[in-house]
Amino acid sequence: MAETPHQHGYMHRKDDYLTRLRRIEGQARGLQRMVEEEKYCIDILTQISAVTKALESVALGLLNEHLSHCVIDAASVGGAEAEVKLKEATDAIARLVRS
Amino acid sequence: MAETPHQHGYMHRKDDYLTRLRRIEGQARGLQRMVEEEKYCIDILTQISAVTKALESVALGLLNEHLSHCVIDAASVGGAEAEVKLKEATDAIARLVRS
Amino acid sequence: MAETPHQHGYMHRKDDYLTRLRRIEGQARGLQRMVEEEKYCIDILTQISAVTKALESVALGLLNEHLSHCVIDAASVGGAEAEVKLKEATDAIARLVRS
Amino acid sequence: MAETPHQHGYMHRKDDYLTRLRRIEGQARGLQRMVEEEKYCIDILTQISAVTKALESVALGLLNEHLSHCVIDAASVGGAEAEVKLKEATDAIARLVRS
Repeated sequence: MAETPHQHGYMHRKDDYLTRLRRIEGQARGLQRMVEEEKYCIDILTQISAVTKALESVALGLLNEHLSHCVIDAASVGGAEAEVKLKEATDAIARLVRS
Repeated sequence: MAETPHQHGYMHRKDDYLTRLRRIEGQARGLQRMVEEEKYCIDILTQISAVTKALESVALGLLNEHLSHCVIDAASVGGAEAEVKLKEATDAIARLVRS
Repeated sequence: MAETPHQHGYMHRKDDYLTRLRRIEGQARGLQRMVEEEKYCIDILTQISAVTKALESVALGLLNEHLSHCVIDAASVGGAEAEVKLKEATDAIARLVRS
Repeated sequence: MAETPHQHGYMHRKDDYLTRLRRIEGQARGLQRMVEEEKYCIDILTQISAVTKALESVALGLLNEHLSHCVIDAASVGGAEAEVKLKEATDAIARLVRS
């Protein structure tokens, strides 16, 4: 995993992301309870769609901040670094669209 | 949450689903660590796509078992129950496709 | 392409599907015009999302009818045919979820 | 539809996009023929997934070019224009992820 020295775009909302990810962890635990308690398949599927939506919204938030900080900062410097950042961003978008 | 007396389709693979959901819970915790440790946005996004795929695969498994047990059983009885089960299944599929 | 003698589930709504698919074809032509006329990228992307949604809705309709006719009919007969139909349906659902 | 004077990112690949969109139009016509000829539901669903994937790939291409030209150009100017471009891009990404 590339560790870059500069401030990541999401830093100013770090606590918000941690809160949302903790909630998602709790939802994942809740899914286990539903299976343990042999709940109805459709209710479990409904809950999985909710967790997927929550993850999607975290991802879109991180992507937005990555574009508006990391990519834009690199663009102002220009050259290879900007191209690397853009390629990383569009690959991440493709993975999101296809997941 | 509707609790039906009959055996849910996923029962024979209950342990497998629990193992997979525990792994997803661990991945959700891992995402928190990445944010805590201020990892690079793209690496977090890559991990979110992996968790989304894992959830998707659990959902498709549950849906498959729901169709081949709950829906098919209801179809053999016929009447309103079969229609309810089908409607529930197609609504769940729509939520999955759109999440 | 497997051609089965029985009536497909969508037959009673054939004209509706043809109307919707004709509209989608028109939208695809409209996208070409937008590129020809060098419209703004974001406006073209907005239109692509609309066409994707329209296709998704046609697919969910066809899937619903396939489940409630082809799969249920096969289930009432039981045996290998029912399993083939179910497998086809769940594979089609997986492709839809992942496209 | 906002018409901006500057060169859109996709201009240098305009013909490629037109070729791909013409193919998608042809596929949409092909779907109509499949319904006209009462083809098997699963085969039509398979074809719809293929058209959706083709649209997705056009969208990701346009988005990539929009980011690397329109957004980056605006970022080099900075100020409100850059923010508008970024907001448009992230909204378009959200629509793509959710369609």
